[in-house]
Amino acid sequence: MADASDFLTRGREVAGKLWGTRAGGQELPAQRLAPEFFALVTQFVFGGFWARPELDMRSRSLCTVAQLAALGRTDELKAHLAGALNLGISRAELIEVLMQTACYAGVPAAVQALNAGADVLK
Amino acid sequence: MADASDFLTRGREVAGKLWGTRAGGQELPAQRLAPEFFALVTQFVFGGFWARPELDMRSRSLCTVAQLAALGRTDELKAHLAGALNLGISRAELIEVLMQTACYAGVPAAVQALNAGADVLK
Amino acid sequence: MADASDFLTRGREVAGKLWGTRAGGQELPAQRLAPEFFALVTQFVFGGFWARPELDMRSRSLCTVAQLAALGRTDELKAHLAGALNLGISRAELIEVLMQTACYAGVPAAVQALNAGADVLK
Amino acid sequence: MADASDFLTRGREVAGKLWGTRAGGQELPAQRLAPEFFALVTQFVFGGFWARPELDMRSRSLCTVAQLAALGRTDELKAHLAGALNLGISRAELIEVLMQTACYAGVPAAVQALNAGADVLK
Amino acid sequence: MADASDFLTRGREVAGKLWGTRAGGQELPAQRLAPEFFALVTQFVFGGFWARPELDMRSRSLCTVAQLAALGRTDELKAHLAGALNLGISRAELIEVLMQTACYAGVPAAVQALNAGADVLK
Amino acid sequence: MADASDFLTRGREVAGKLWGTRAGGQELPAQRLAPEFFALVTQFVFGGFWARPELDMRSRSLCTVAQLAALGRTDELKAHLAGALNLGISRAELIEVLMQTACYAGVPAAVQALNAGADVLK
Repeated sequence: MADASDFLTRGREVAGKLWGTRAGGQELPAQRLAPEFFALVTQFVFGGFWARPELDMRSRSLCTVAQLAALGRTDELKAHLAGALNLGISRAELIEVLMQTACYAGVPAAVQALNAGADVLK
Repeated sequence: MADASDFLTRGREVAGKLWGTRAGGQELPAQRLAPEFFALVTQFVFGGFWARPELDMRSRSLCTVAQLAALGRTDELKAHLAGALNLGISRAELIEVLMQTACYAGVPAAVQALNAGADVLK
Repeated sequence: MADASDFLTRGREVAGKLWGTRAGGQELPAQRLAPEFFALVTQFVFGGFWARPELDMRSRSLCTVAQLAALGRTDELKAHLAGALNLGISRAELIEVLMQTACYAGVPAAVQALNAGADVLK
Repeated sequence: MADASDFLTRGREVAGKLWGTRAGGQELPAQRLAPEFFALVTQFVFGGFWARPELDMRSRSLCTVAQLAALGRTDELKAHLAGALNLGISRAELIEVLMQTACYAGVPAAVQALNAGADVLK
Repeated sequence: MADASDFLTRGREVAGKLWGTRAGGQELPAQRLAPEFFALVTQFVFGGFWARPELDMRSRSLCTVAQLAALGRTDELKAHLAGALNLGISRAELIEVLMQTACYAGVPAAVQALNAGADVLK
Repeated sequence: MADASDFLTRGREVAGKLWGTRAGGQELPAQRLAPEFFALVTQFVFGGFWARPELDMRSRSLCTVAQLAALGRTDELKAHLAGALNLGISRAELIEVLMQTACYAGVPAAVQALNAGADVLK
């Protein structure tokens, strides 16, 4: 079993592929309020799940974009659309994922996602 | 612009790739109650969105599974897990998509999705 | 301002129009666990909101069915579909409300609602 | 079965009754990003569902407002509140629909909907 | 059974403990649009539920903060974080409740809650 | 920083306080399908969040019950109601948490939670 420093190392590696060494962009108010939370997230989300070899990163990125669009999480959606572009997923593919959200989460969810993505994808 | 018979033709073609000519398995109570609804869905969901060439079917299938898991739609999830296997997506990849749902929709959503998928994926 | 016995009197009157003197059908496990909860609900939901004269009961019933379908609350949905029929709303109108749910909450929400409503509406 | 030009024609007719020839107000970022999406929505949502004769437009409008309030879709809610006023539904009726949302989706959903509706309904 | 003036009296007493005589801070657009709604909420939410002696106010406050964070209701969350501080719950405890939201509603829900709470809790 | 074996050790300790050495009851289909998922959950949810000393376990348990009720996660809700009783939280307190859910997530969410909890709490 991996030890925790492995989780952190692997998590930072995954985040670096998505967003470079900046690892996610400008500092959020939440990061000043609860810095330990973000260390846990890097370990668990990126080191514990994303770093597993059973699924390629392109597929993980598309699925993440799809879920964030369906759940209406626009801030994370913007960050992961930028990450998806960094992985080489095309603008047209990402627009298509956001459009298809209408089928499973309703038209307003897709409109909200397309509005959120407009700056990143234009 | 496509006419409606195109929507239907293309929609049936997509559904056939996912589920064969049965197109989705056993008849639901909803299908007896509102048969016209399902004709509209075939036209719009599969003919209007899935049939567009901008995104490959593997990616559409993974994104659909991811969204249904995040939204807790277990009946559709089972149907689309079966469809994903028919497209050649592996059992291990699908389990991984369901697991990663924990990060974005919470652990209980992932557990519910894994429970729902157990019959289809084992 | 109404006193609490008014809330209860008016709430029971509204519930009686929806479901007769049975006021909602068979006893739920929740009713044995927390009987005071249901007295509060009768006062507040039916006495405090539904009893207000600013909107007719047909419209309140349709809006309630629409919201329960969108939110995936199938037990309440069944009860309110039965109530809607008691108010004289037609079976065809109610099926249409459930179908339209696909536009705003996604196709799976509509399918779930139509499945839930099949027994009451057939 | 209707052909696709029928869907579009009927969809535009419905949207025109709700919002006039402007069909929904100012251009959204999403409309520049994915113009084909909105053509599909006009065909499917308005041409495929709203245009069906089984339910009157007043009832469809009230149910849509109710669902958007319950789901917290404030941008679409504002647009559909304006559409509902155009159909002749009164300001007092619409406030009542938003208030009743508290019963089925919780008090915060109703407060959010009333805040979103304040500009349109005052 | 309590009469309605009891509900109102007890509701105002609870709200006063959370927010002082201001009872909730600056006036919302919703309060001008639907003042009767807020009188009903005071009676029912605070007078009908919170005022019951079966659960202490600290626990009610923590549970409310937890639910608002999980449901993404940021405006109410801010108000109830302020109320929780007024009851003597510590800043560190509240940050911990928001962090734990990641487990049950997903990481983006926790980030949104921590961002919303940053002003109140810093 | 803790290493991963610490996460696991502390996570098992927390789970043991909630459910004894059985750690959660009967095996789920999900546990056979994805056993590694549950190891990750023990490390992250219980070892990473619950084990932190900033909030007492009674408060964590109440907040978890509140969130699961609000989100409609009935399987986890039952497990955590049993855990809460093991921590010494009373049956009456837990019923009260479930009742109050009506205010923030709507009456149907509370009814569903009370129905789910009836077996554990009676």
